Amino acid sequence: MANLQEQNHLDTLQERIILALESSNISDAANIIQQDLSPPEAAHILESCPQKVRHLLWGLVNEEDQGEVLTHLNEDIQQQFLEEMSAEEIVETTQEIDNDDLADILQQMPTEASHRVLQLMPSEERSQVEGLLAFPEDTAGGLMTNRMVNIRGDVTIEAVLRYLRKKKLPKSLDVLWVVDRTQHYQGSLALTELLQSPPEAIISEIMDTSIKAIECTLHEDKVAQIFERDDLVSAPVVDADNILIGRITIDDVVDVIRDSADHNMMRLAGLDEESDTFAPILKSSQQRAVWLGINMATAFVAAAVMSRFEASIAQIVALAVLSPVVASMGGIAGSQTLTLMIRGMATGHISRANLSWIVLREMGVAVINGALWASVIAGITVAWYGQWSLALVIAAAILVNICIAVLSGTLLPFILKSARIDPALSGSVILTTLTDVFGFLTFLGLATVYLL
Amino acid sequence: MANLQEQNHLDTLQERIILALESSNISDAANIIQQDLSPPEAAHILESCPQKVRHLLWGLVNEEDQGEVLTHLNEDIQQQFLEEMSAEEIVETTQEIDNDDLADILQQMPTEASHRVLQLMPSEERSQVEGLLAFPEDTAGGLMTNRMVNIRGDVTIEAVLRYLRKKKLPKSLDVLWVVDRTQHYQGSLALTELLQSPPEAIISEIMDTSIKAIECTLHEDKVAQIFERDDLVSAPVVDADNILIGRITIDDVVDVIRDSADHNMMRLAGLDEESDTFAPILKSSQQRAVWLGINMATAFVAAAVMSRFEASIAQIVALAVLSPVVASMGGIAGSQTLTLMIRGMATGHISRANLSWIVLREMGVAVINGALWASVIAGITVAWYGQWSLALVIAAAILVNICIAVLSGTLLPFILKSARIDPALSGSVILTTLTDVFGFLTFLGLATVYLL
Repeated sequence: MANLQEQNHLDTLQERIILALESSNISDAANIIQQDLSPPEAAHILESCPQKVRHLLWGLVNEEDQGEVLTHLNEDIQQQFLEEMSAEEIVETTQEIDNDDLADILQQMPTEASHRVLQLMPSEERSQVEGLLAFPEDTAGGLMTNRMVNIRGDVTIEAVLRYLRKKKLPKSLDVLWVVDRTQHYQGSLALTELLQSPPEAIISEIMDTSIKAIECTLHEDKVAQIFERDDLVSAPVVDADNILIGRITIDDVVDVIRDSADHNMMRLAGLDEESDTFAPILKSSQQRAVWLGINMATAFVAAAVMSRFEASIAQIVALAVLSPVVASMGGIAGSQTLTLMIRGMATGHISRANLSWIVLREMGVAVINGALWASVIAGITVAWYGQWSLALVIAAAILVNICIAVLSGTLLPFILKSARIDPALSGSVILTTLTDVFGFLTFLGLATVYLL
Repeated sequence: MANLQEQNHLDTLQERIILALESSNISDAANIIQQDLSPPEAAHILESCPQKVRHLLWGLVNEEDQGEVLTHLNEDIQQQFLEEMSAEEIVETTQEIDNDDLADILQQMPTEASHRVLQLMPSEERSQVEGLLAFPEDTAGGLMTNRMVNIRGDVTIEAVLRYLRKKKLPKSLDVLWVVDRTQHYQGSLALTELLQSPPEAIISEIMDTSIKAIECTLHEDKVAQIFERDDLVSAPVVDADNILIGRITIDDVVDVIRDSADHNMMRLAGLDEESDTFAPILKSSQQRAVWLGINMATAFVAAAVMSRFEASIAQIVALAVLSPVVASMGGIAGSQTLTLMIRGMATGHISRANLSWIVLREMGVAVINGALWASVIAGITVAWYGQWSLALVIAAAILVNICIAVLSGTLLPFILKSARIDPALSGSVILTTLTDVFGFLTFLGLATVYLL
């Protein structure tokens, strides 16, 4: 049953490679990499190893597979390997890969280096790749390939079949794009349709016009939304004049979907979704140090607020014990709303059009939960400290802080997005600062006024 | 340029629908829904509206489109609409949709109701759908459709072309599966290959054997990893005897990828990725109340720890002000590691095979960042309170807490996963509790021993 995808097939192979390396049995490791692993699988295993091992294994990859392995590696690692290769080696290695993948690779290299690579390429291919490099990486133009097979609408099925027999066709093609004389996009023709229609049928009469073209300037996140929503496998890309210039396939969109979903989760923790799990320790430390530093600053802002009330705390020590509870309830409620908003904005379900509905809803949820947990916490406080007045103060503070947290969680992503700041990255820091500061301020402020 | 996907096309249409409804102009809204929106777009807009509006708009959807709109709605909303339909209406509505989508819909209905629907279906279709219902929803079997076109390996291209002409073919077909006499999976044949090979070629001689079959019991997350890694558009599904039983297409896998990525982000905030952004306020409040309650409990655990040191705090109030800083630095460092681990486990880059590398790496990062921020915070403390002894105590506490946080963040997801507990959901609560408790304990404990 060599035909079967085994559940932990890759994990097992990785373990075997590690064992081989540990016993310095390089030829065993080489055998596994060269014979048992497909290029995407090899890339996956390279990504799951620390630097040193990774370089060793890269040397064991078959030369003819290196190009494909390279396209499947994440950007950080690609760059490391490219830096160590000469322009000639890069041209040699990337000969067989799709030109959109090659454009992606070149886009990350220093301009000078990518220039040298382009100079060494055959002129027809160079001009195709240069055409792609003109588009920003995060747009439909940056995602597309310009190696396509287009057909004219005014010809017959028979003519198309004859034409296709001579062409080099891309793998996993499911539809052909139909254009007019001047390359304007008109519609699509499924290969299945091509197989089943009478030879004399005219393309424009049987083509499907339901797949709309995507303009090359559209942001890749929007492209992903369209593919997801309409269950597309490929889509035509046009310029501002509706002239067909490329084709986007689902495999590239899947990467965008994964990255954009990961992006939000990773940014909420101050991490970069493209970063390498096994980057050098010092590099990772630097990246994470920034985030810890920012959060330290906000923690000290909150501490400074608290220190204004040192006199109150000295009199009622319970205030010190209960303050973090108030801050943390706000933090949790706020981060729930923030996560919901960031996800809704990513999927396109939340926009300016329905913002007022969202605000009303979230405030409803905040008031209900604020009231509920204010009462519970008040009860606990009475049971613990036996002071009704302290219980009332903490209840009021919890209610106010949860409402402020939820309102900020709802509005912050919109405000940040209008200011072109990534809400996932900065939203959580700003939100925590707000909930800490307002938590301490309301609780300690009310306590100072009413309890002392 | 009606052919073009506009950037904010849908937002604009949604705004126009809202305006129409606000001025009670139902027929305008109906026109937009029936003429300007494709079924997936209509589903998207329904998902972006509150309950009441949603029901109103659902009534305006063309009857022949309702089935397709239904398949594009999220599960919560599907269920609401299905509850209000009779079995006859459901059969009528879902006539045109793929049988794997229909199986998904039936899987969510109460057994009795889905039974009634199945009874009313034509017997051939019923047995196909029942075949699918036998598989758990989250496996390859649950993702696949069993409506396929398979070809035999021992026939010629010409025979296949003749055979296909008479068949009803699924849309967006790119490859055919090749089987032997007894339906064992053998390989694949791209439609492009079919178009370009000589009529007399034998299928088994030109077929591609690089696409491995997926076993029907494989978990959907693993299926998604394979599709992502190998850039697949469709894949064959086999049973334990390698007999071909179905076909998985990328459109269903894209939903799995989106859901699994969203799942982790949403669970880290205690939310459910399938839940409806516009669920009734009371229902949402309940869901989120549970999470707030759990976090409140952990906040009080931390508060209880702190209260053991009330005597120390009463003497040095600065301890109250600085405690939250210690806890929060641990929380941030821990949540970074936890997020990294959860993402790495989701993409398959982190497994038992390389756990020891990960632990070493993360501890390295923890020690470097712990030492760095311990020094910075010690500096700030000296500047603020002018006490070197206090500064030393907080520095030690920060270093210890960051190390504990990172070690827990690395190991927790593995321990939880072995115990079959979702690390994204419970990991963050457990982690925060640990960093709060250990933060307070080390800081206040050291302070009590050395400063009083």
